[in-house]
Amino acid sequence: MTLPIASVPNGTITSPKGFSAGGIFAGIKTPGVDKKDIGLLYSEQACAIAGTFSQNSIISPTVTLDRQRVGTDKKIHAVVVNSGCANTAVGDQGMIDAKEMTDITGAHLGVASEKTLVSSTGVIGVEIPMALMREFIPQIEVSADGGGEFAKAILTTDKRTKEIAVSFDVDDVTHTVGGVSKGSGMIHPNMATMLAYVTTDADVDPAFLQETLSESVKLSFNQIDVDGDQSTNDTVLLMANGAAGGPVISGGNDASTAFVEAVRKVTQYLAIEIARDGEGATKLIEVTVNGAHSADDALSASRSCAASMLVKTAVYGRDPNWGRIFMAVGKSQIPLDESKIDCFVNDIQIVHAGKAISYNVQSVVSALAGDEVRLRVDLNVGDETGVAWGCDLTEEYVVFNSAYTT
Amino acid sequence: MTLPIASVPNGTITSPKGFSAGGIFAGIKTPGVDKKDIGLLYSEQACAIAGTFSQNSIISPTVTLDRQRVGTDKKIHAVVVNSGCANTAVGDQGMIDAKEMTDITGAHLGVASEKTLVSSTGVIGVEIPMALMREFIPQIEVSADGGGEFAKAILTTDKRTKEIAVSFDVDDVTHTVGGVSKGSGMIHPNMATMLAYVTTDADVDPAFLQETLSESVKLSFNQIDVDGDQSTNDTVLLMANGAAGGPVISGGNDASTAFVEAVRKVTQYLAIEIARDGEGATKLIEVTVNGAHSADDALSASRSCAASMLVKTAVYGRDPNWGRIFMAVGKSQIPLDESKIDCFVNDIQIVHAGKAISYNVQSVVSALAGDEVRLRVDLNVGDETGVAWGCDLTEEYVVFNSAYTT
Repeated sequence: MTLPIASVPNGTITSPKGFSAGGIFAGIKTPGVDKKDIGLLYSEQACAIAGTFSQNSIISPTVTLDRQRVGTDKKIHAVVVNSGCANTAVGDQGMIDAKEMTDITGAHLGVASEKTLVSSTGVIGVEIPMALMREFIPQIEVSADGGGEFAKAILTTDKRTKEIAVSFDVDDVTHTVGGVSKGSGMIHPNMATMLAYVTTDADVDPAFLQETLSESVKLSFNQIDVDGDQSTNDTVLLMANGAAGGPVISGGNDASTAFVEAVRKVTQYLAIEIARDGEGATKLIEVTVNGAHSADDALSASRSCAASMLVKTAVYGRDPNWGRIFMAVGKSQIPLDESKIDCFVNDIQIVHAGKAISYNVQSVVSALAGDEVRLRVDLNVGDETGVAWGCDLTEEYVVFNSAYTT
Repeated sequence: MTLPIASVPNGTITSPKGFSAGGIFAGIKTPGVDKKDIGLLYSEQACAIAGTFSQNSIISPTVTLDRQRVGTDKKIHAVVVNSGCANTAVGDQGMIDAKEMTDITGAHLGVASEKTLVSSTGVIGVEIPMALMREFIPQIEVSADGGGEFAKAILTTDKRTKEIAVSFDVDDVTHTVGGVSKGSGMIHPNMATMLAYVTTDADVDPAFLQETLSESVKLSFNQIDVDGDQSTNDTVLLMANGAAGGPVISGGNDASTAFVEAVRKVTQYLAIEIARDGEGATKLIEVTVNGAHSADDALSASRSCAASMLVKTAVYGRDPNWGRIFMAVGKSQIPLDESKIDCFVNDIQIVHAGKAISYNVQSVVSALAGDEVRLRVDLNVGDETGVAWGCDLTEEYVVFNSAYTT
């Protein structure tokens, strides 16, 4: 029996029971209306913890520290996150500061610093202003409705917060999964992405928790692209505190299936919102590749297409230049048969059996003018499907990124 | 003994003895001053032939046909190239047209069509206008000083022709290597790139010829990036007709070493000119990675940096944002030790041992304002070096590519 998954209105990371959060403006970023730059997430009950992290050869000490503190034999209570400074490429001071941030947070909340995680996002190569951390972290008030404050605190160049929660019932016990993320630039994750935090009040077996997160990340954050660049600070954390009071979820039953589905919905929503809010973007691009030999082929080809600068600029220009879609699918080097490929823009077919067909150009140009553009490539050589998300590439991306630090 | 390599003034593909070339305007592209869109390259003496081609899963039938006709047991006399139409993703008609182009060319020159190669570049998904081919190819006059006409005929969005020749003497016999290329967009080659033709009057063993070309392409065309996209039509051909009258070159002596060096100079020059003339580019970016564990690591890291959109936009904005250089080197996932990395912009050091050092920001901003920007990353973990070339990313790239076919 499939358990239905419901949306939680105004859902966020504090929608699951037992989680509280808050945020504050410390002055790490330039001031602005309702701006915050340190966020705190807390659970009184210890949480099973799963994580995926950047595969970049150069990573932030905050990522290194979190990796040490995440595992099936570990429990955590809190995460502190600052935006405006990545704490990356600052030498040995980076780890000293990352640890001190968890010390300050642990002392403030009354938990061991080893049970506290830390993330940083922002400019690389600049030390964390620890004086601000020491002054402002102890001032952060966490509350059961503070998820939105946390969501604001982790943003950098994002135009809006990204929050969601969903729920499912197991034997009359409501289980909730909530999440927040930030993105905007340096987005082409591999095994992880930017910052995202997912909470649940389900009681989840730690190994199953990591397995669920890894599989969800593969189909969500690892399938988005803004600019092909992979950050040094990418982190996705999934915390399960069991506060719902339900049975242990460890795979092999309806509750587990519902949990996996709920985590997938949350991570996919957050990933899509990151793509939609890419730097300079005017629209979301969803690329579906059907009929591939393998799921990995379909994921690779759809991502290659969503990441192609020539596809991104064509969509921006409302140009049904399907030759670029072919090029971008093909550069993934998956096996295919060109003479079997069909192509669609928002369900309007423009290519059949590898060749252009007559279509109403104006209809396709109109479809490309919308806020969301769906490109579909049917390879017709197998049964597997993959989906990826990107955004268009505009002059604004260039203007913005040619004047970021100076 | 190292044989000196000399530049040939106004060198091009017809600088080596026995090669003639020409070009014509047939109307495949929109007309313009001195525009041409079909080029012809011919050698009366049969040529040993080596080639490298696009690794895209979707390739032009012209590439498929050339692959069949290139090999150590093959000889060719001619290459016909059209610009303005890629002859890609047009179904079975593509191969029929590619073959007919070589039939027309063979008949015009009096050589077998099997000894004629063909390349096409331009819009994907549109059939070659064969009526124009039948009318205009037979009108092309080839001459020993026609290399420049050929160079013009292969251009698409390029702003200028790319031509070079170098020579070296073996026992008083002058050997010349010439080359032309075109590039501009969809440039992130793998095992081959865009269109480039290299000619030589040296008498070269076919296996050594292919080995020399493959190794040269690895260090030249495979190390450039404009926009991360790999074309369906990438082709590099190397033709050796032996017209210089020198000994057979087959490896293991000074003449062979000089030949390899000459081919490397030619391919590297042509590759760099493609990067410099990237769509919308205002400057060439050269990235050198020193002190890597392996040459492949150094090549991969330098290319990752030259291909990074965030590095490209930072250079465009004259922004010494070295955190992006770190990110881009690291996303190649090569082994490194962050605490050993030194970074330089046009020889001005900005990072020592993985951390920012005090430098005159204005000097670095001035360096970034030049036509050529040299980024150097010393990993200091090994002895290997790799170089890659890219260009900056500007609003003009976006404007240009958001309005290409419509």
